[in-house]
Amino acid sequence: MDKYASVFQGTAFTSKSRREIDILRDHLFCVNDAGVIERVIAPGAADYERIRAEQEASGRFRRLAPGQYLLPGFVDLHVHAPQWAQSGTALDIPLYDWLNTYTFPLEARFADLGFARTVYEDLVSALLANGTTTALYFATIHKESSLLLAEICAAKGQRGLIGKVVMDDPEQNPDYYRDADTKTALEDTEAFILAVKRLAESAKQGVYPVVTPRFIPSCTDEALKGLGELAAKHDTHIQSHCSESDWAHGYVKDRFGKHDAFALHDFGLLTDKSVMAHCNFLDEDDAALFARTGTAIGHCPISNAYFANSVIPIARWLDRGVEVGLGSDLSGGFSPSLFDNARQAVMSSRMLEDGVNPALPASERGVPESRLTIDEAFYLATAGGGESLSLPVGRLAEGYAWDAQIVDVTVPGAKLPIFGEEEPLHDVFQKILYLSRPENIREVWVQGEKVHSRS
Amino acid sequence: MDKYASVFQGTAFTSKSRREIDILRDHLFCVNDAGVIERVIAPGAADYERIRAEQEASGRFRRLAPGQYLLPGFVDLHVHAPQWAQSGTALDIPLYDWLNTYTFPLEARFADLGFARTVYEDLVSALLANGTTTALYFATIHKESSLLLAEICAAKGQRGLIGKVVMDDPEQNPDYYRDADTKTALEDTEAFILAVKRLAESAKQGVYPVVTPRFIPSCTDEALKGLGELAAKHDTHIQSHCSESDWAHGYVKDRFGKHDAFALHDFGLLTDKSVMAHCNFLDEDDAALFARTGTAIGHCPISNAYFANSVIPIARWLDRGVEVGLGSDLSGGFSPSLFDNARQAVMSSRMLEDGVNPALPASERGVPESRLTIDEAFYLATAGGGESLSLPVGRLAEGYAWDAQIVDVTVPGAKLPIFGEEEPLHDVFQKILYLSRPENIREVWVQGEKVHSRS
Ligand SMILES: [Zn+2]
Ligand SMILES: [Zn+2]
Repeated sequence: MDKYASVFQGTAFTSKSRREIDILRDHLFCVNDAGVIERVIAPGAADYERIRAEQEASGRFRRLAPGQYLLPGFVDLHVHAPQWAQSGTALDIPLYDWLNTYTFPLEARFADLGFARTVYEDLVSALLANGTTTALYFATIHKESSLLLAEICAAKGQRGLIGKVVMDDPEQNPDYYRDADTKTALEDTEAFILAVKRLAESAKQGVYPVVTPRFIPSCTDEALKGLGELAAKHDTHIQSHCSESDWAHGYVKDRFGKHDAFALHDFGLLTDKSVMAHCNFLDEDDAALFARTGTAIGHCPISNAYFANSVIPIARWLDRGVEVGLGSDLSGGFSPSLFDNARQAVMSSRMLEDGVNPALPASERGVPESRLTIDEAFYLATAGGGESLSLPVGRLAEGYAWDAQIVDVTVPGAKLPIFGEEEPLHDVFQKILYLSRPENIREVWVQGEKVHSRS
Repeated sequence: MDKYASVFQGTAFTSKSRREIDILRDHLFCVNDAGVIERVIAPGAADYERIRAEQEASGRFRRLAPGQYLLPGFVDLHVHAPQWAQSGTALDIPLYDWLNTYTFPLEARFADLGFARTVYEDLVSALLANGTTTALYFATIHKESSLLLAEICAAKGQRGLIGKVVMDDPEQNPDYYRDADTKTALEDTEAFILAVKRLAESAKQGVYPVVTPRFIPSCTDEALKGLGELAAKHDTHIQSHCSESDWAHGYVKDRFGKHDAFALHDFGLLTDKSVMAHCNFLDEDDAALFARTGTAIGHCPISNAYFANSVIPIARWLDRGVEVGLGSDLSGGFSPSLFDNARQAVMSSRMLEDGVNPALPASERGVPESRLTIDEAFYLATAGGGESLSLPVGRLAEGYAWDAQIVDVTVPGAKLPIFGEEEPLHDVFQKILYLSRPENIREVWVQGEKVHSRS
């Protein structure tokens, strides 16, 4: 007997490659004790019936109901956890005002662990309810409440990668919200890394510390250098913002005489475990550097509509071999859903391709060959995110974690427009991508454990 | 005693003007037997307490629960009802293929009244569940199933404005899906108008026939002329598509030597009861003609990302005094929600303002002063839609229909990120606009009748 911890029978959608969706009709997904998919078995395989029968007899078998489908859990590459408290507000004002009037005062409140707990528990539950099984978080400058976020991820079963934010430059940050000094910023970061690594020993799904300079303008050279060294010493993930807007891009050019990518690289901050948010103003050299170092782009299409002054040519950077995943960028982006962000990734790419100004002739309006399909956007939200983090997540395939969402297209009150039995599965998939709501996500699993359900 | 059919006590958000939201904290909304708001009473008014007490005693009083808010129902200015069956699919292919491979074959199936009933009942329920209380529909070329859609609206309590589609030109339409000939197209349209007017006599909320040439390329001159005459004879609403894409805009210029707006006007199709979908390629003269005739733009921001090759400068046309409302354009747009479309209206307008191509200098990238705020997008989805249709809907104000949605921000599983009691109501409003889901819409009312609820 094969003794799987659990076996699921159902139809799944998972990315084979950037452009191809694997449609696995009525397959068995055999999950071991570690929460890893050990085998995926197609109907007609020699042992399909035997394994199904054995698992059913031992009560470790689950057959999906009609109208239910399996998708990989989503990987959100960019979340400002404290900003959940202001999601959806103040998006009509410029970035500078948004940061100084709303965002920094809000983040400063996370010195209060009680407030932090309230917001962080609500956020992690909300992300799980939206199908996000792995999230890469910016917390705040506070070591304790950043650790609290890691503890909440551990307790709720989400795969969290968490950064204590560093912003140490007294010239660039408000007095009420910055690291006390560079030395403290680095010491707090190292203590945070060690504390999260201890916590990880008892978290089956993994929690990870992330070295997190907010962005170059917030940090002194000394802090950036020290953070690169800490990341190397402790082999951690690294995250920051990169070339997000005209202003940020121009600031770094003025300070270092180069683009963000090369400046970050000088400080040892571009590695295979680096994810850089936005990256709208990368040029070909920057992108080549990303590809060479294994640095990934965290593409945040909703947020970019408000704060990035442009649409990043994701299709081009994928062509160049850069790793790309999707990010919600709460609360620069308002939505906690990567379904919403996948839809926007497609729409924004279409607007880049066709252009926006109807007063221009079509030939001068846009950037040809920029479009992403919804299949590619799904890839970004799942497998692309896993590759960006160099973690075995984002696919329903052998060797990957059992991080899955069960989507039901027949839920009363949230039924999808599917009429008749004969709908091609690729159409069902596209309807799920474009039309499903959190209500349709009936269960969410991480590393073989059920972490969210609706009854 | 004042004898209202019902009185609601709660906090409401409603547009005062394009840019201003009225926040009516804890007001009384007094609805008469005709389903019209007869009075709106502020706390502190002389008779507030008396009316509240009297209504409570007579059992015709409703106090909203904590966390519940009132919004006007949405007005969707552009829905292709039959296309609900393909929403979310085939959006990665060009318009021509989309029409000929998917859309026309699907619409042709609505000769079958059984299939039509299944799809239309599902659609009207879905739109009500998304808060859409008034919808302007394209049905199909079929007189009978178009009338069936009107009957379903009448039965479910939605305010439906329905058009039997005319597409009579044998050169431009497939044989399997077009009007038999011009004479039949016009006779069917007139018969349809009369049948809907009869039906309207027993529909409290109103159902309305709409003269509906699909778009200029589908119709002969004779049909367009005849439709203008029918609209005048029966004083009906008129809808079509106008200057949607480079191709459509160019086609009309070739055929008539003028833009869609002036060509439609020549046929008597621009009146105060006209709504034209998309209109991306209007110029200043076209817009002035719209303003002068009272013709409205049905702005469909999600659909435009796929099929319109541009972003329409809505802020400019509002400045010029053109009436504008929002449309989902199912299924050129995938979402049945005007919340989703309001969000996209804001995002698309930001992309028009800032531009999309990061390789261009900021000064050459976009079209300054194009942005819409979320408050303006809400105006478009509600009051702007009512004004476009010249109907007293879209506001929670005296003299308007009691078309309302009750949104609950505390629903388990769909709780909005509101922490603490002190959140300013304008922030609560923005969170509702950006983050609420169909699950948050607990009840929907049309003309004083409850037409949707979740328990
Ligand atoms: Zn960010
Ligand atoms: Zn249309």
